[in-house]
Amino acid sequence: MSPLYMFEKPLGMRDTLPKLYEIKRNVRASVENEMRSWGYQFIATPALEYDETVGAASAIMEQQLFKLLDQQGRTLVLRPDMTAPIARVAASKLLKRNIPIRLAYSENVYRAQQREGGRPAEFEQIGVECIGDSTISADGEGIALMISALKAAGLQEFQLSVGHIGFVRKLFQQIVGTEERVEALTRFLYEKNYVGFKMHVENLSLSSIDKQRLLRFLHLKGQDETIPAAFDILENGQGTEEVEELRQLWDIIADYGYEDIVKFDLTQVSHMSYYTGIVYEAYAEKVGFPIGNGGRYDGLLGKFGKNTGATGFAIRFNRLLEALEETKAAEPLYAIFFSAERRKEAFQLAGEQRASGKKVVLQDISGVHDLDANTKQYEDIVYLLGKSGKESMQ
Amino acid sequence: MSPLYMFEKPLGMRDTLPKLYEIKRNVRASVENEMRSWGYQFIATPALEYDETVGAASAIMEQQLFKLLDQQGRTLVLRPDMTAPIARVAASKLLKRNIPIRLAYSENVYRAQQREGGRPAEFEQIGVECIGDSTISADGEGIALMISALKAAGLQEFQLSVGHIGFVRKLFQQIVGTEERVEALTRFLYEKNYVGFKMHVENLSLSSIDKQRLLRFLHLKGQDETIPAAFDILENGQGTEEVEELRQLWDIIADYGYEDIVKFDLTQVSHMSYYTGIVYEAYAEKVGFPIGNGGRYDGLLGKFGKNTGATGFAIRFNRLLEALEETKAAEPLYAIFFSAERRKEAFQLAGEQRASGKKVVLQDISGVHDLDANTKQYEDIVYLLGKSGKESMQ
Repeated sequence: MSPLYMFEKPLGMRDTLPKLYEIKRNVRASVENEMRSWGYQFIATPALEYDETVGAASAIMEQQLFKLLDQQGRTLVLRPDMTAPIARVAASKLLKRNIPIRLAYSENVYRAQQREGGRPAEFEQIGVECIGDSTISADGEGIALMISALKAAGLQEFQLSVGHIGFVRKLFQQIVGTEERVEALTRFLYEKNYVGFKMHVENLSLSSIDKQRLLRFLHLKGQDETIPAAFDILENGQGTEEVEELRQLWDIIADYGYEDIVKFDLTQVSHMSYYTGIVYEAYAEKVGFPIGNGGRYDGLLGKFGKNTGATGFAIRFNRLLEALEETKAAEPLYAIFFSAERRKEAFQLAGEQRASGKKVVLQDISGVHDLDANTKQYEDIVYLLGKSGKESMQ
Repeated sequence: MSPLYMFEKPLGMRDTLPKLYEIKRNVRASVENEMRSWGYQFIATPALEYDETVGAASAIMEQQLFKLLDQQGRTLVLRPDMTAPIARVAASKLLKRNIPIRLAYSENVYRAQQREGGRPAEFEQIGVECIGDSTISADGEGIALMISALKAAGLQEFQLSVGHIGFVRKLFQQIVGTEERVEALTRFLYEKNYVGFKMHVENLSLSSIDKQRLLRFLHLKGQDETIPAAFDILENGQGTEEVEELRQLWDIIADYGYEDIVKFDLTQVSHMSYYTGIVYEAYAEKVGFPIGNGGRYDGLLGKFGKNTGATGFAIRFNRLLEALEETKAAEPLYAIFFSAERRKEAFQLAGEQRASGKKVVLQDISGVHDLDANTKQYEDIVYLLGKSGKESMQ
């Protein structure tokens, strides 16, 4: 192969070297253990799925999908998220009775990137799905578990922002009428382009009262004082059910003791088109993108033949790592350098030290060409050479 | 999507449900911890690589590669093994000085399958690579670590079969002369078609002494008595170096105390074309395929611009699981069923039980439609309903 390209990796693909690998391993274990202790059961699904099943059910844009043909000529996709595959497994194998199931996953997902130096094309998501439970308690549990999992990972400063897609849709439909117009307004929110939203509203042929309602909507952010403000904007009872859900949700969050971490932002909409109800995103100070997001998706299971409600979230693991303070250093590595004469003694000593929990490299001295460089990697080295006694140096 | 196909997965792709997931997690942790305690450092590489780099360096057959085009029109492959990607990382980032490095990985690899119900197309390999150490001690360490890792996983009855690709090539070249004829003979060994090998040898235009040497070669199996028998077959000193390596290897294995698990089988060749020296495979009684294999590959790093020796092995994780006796049952799951009035009490109780190490599901009773089916999944349920006292059943 050409020496110019031999070390190249595809756009957005990254290696994980030992130090980062161990940090990831520790943080991942903390998050997973928290999910496990809440009774969520981990499952795994294949990296490749049929485009016509999971690809079609996913909310990821077409141009972000990695696609390939199998030998039968059918189109495969590298899974772009885990929610659609989990819905497939739940509907086909686990939802046999009408009982809520709690599932978790910790997997890589794949989204093609357009530019060099941009976002990762392969990244890890750790998430949960609570399927078959339509109570607000299930939404609240998702929010509380996301907070607990982030705390377990060691994250100090973060906020959860909570919205309600159903509320936004009902309010907009009430005011602007058609689905197309609702979409146009929603797009400004998705892009967080509030100036554009205001200009767009000014140009709509609406009563000044309705324009005022849309502009007041932009201010529905804060804690529980947001609830009466949201009620005030509604007319004809349309959307009161959704605000009532948010009120219940706040009580649940208060019972978990997490009111200081959660804020309402009712202008929040998600790029995930399958969300239908309460949605949330987690933000940490140092990271520009949400480190996790979740919400209720009551329509997705129906695509797999089971009409039941579901809610869940995913933590974007690489962003969580970015947000964490420096984590503890790697465990030290010890070594025993030996020559053939004392090999057996070396093997026995290594066995004892490993059994006591140490990480011990056994190194035949004749395989060492640069002793100085070699010794630097180890916390301590025991030399068992020739016929002399045991010697330790650093 | 069509209801007929909506649950379908691509050929050779499998889901892992909760029970198997936990078994895998425990076995994987045992194997990984053993590798870690021997000073091997884990790294990760991307699932997608360029065909012209890692695809070209891999030993997997072209028709088994999953290929796709990226948006720049370059061909990508889903990694078919981990040895080539690790060689890329080692050569580009880790082999900065002339010191041996010990790396490990635990990843899925991808090989397209032709038939329904056949082998998995996505499967997990847990392996190690010792790069930059050309001593026989490094080969012996690979064998000893594979044995220790399989023991740590709980495997009781297994054997390691050891061969030497370099010995086979030198012997065959000495007798049949051309590379083409060596390949023809080797293919019979790879297919374990010994009858075909014998018939082929009968038809070669060789002296009857040389034919006898090739037929005696087929019997080079056993313990240390294999070494003098292998020396006997050689002429003109060609290949004595390789047999000498096997003799040294046997002493090393004896120093590890693993003579009862290791057997020589000098007819053993591997489908991995990059192997150059000592090779080995692990077999367990109940499984028809090797549960792991490894060997020395002194040419591969050169493809990435670093001429240094390397040896390593991979455990085929799904086959190891097949070989294991029934592993311990999953941890029990507890539940607290609550109504809104006693929600806060339920949250507090769950928090306490989780902190004590239990897995506890919190379930809003209004999300439960089939109470009988629901209660069956839990070891025990605490009901915190209405205003009455706490009650436990089952």
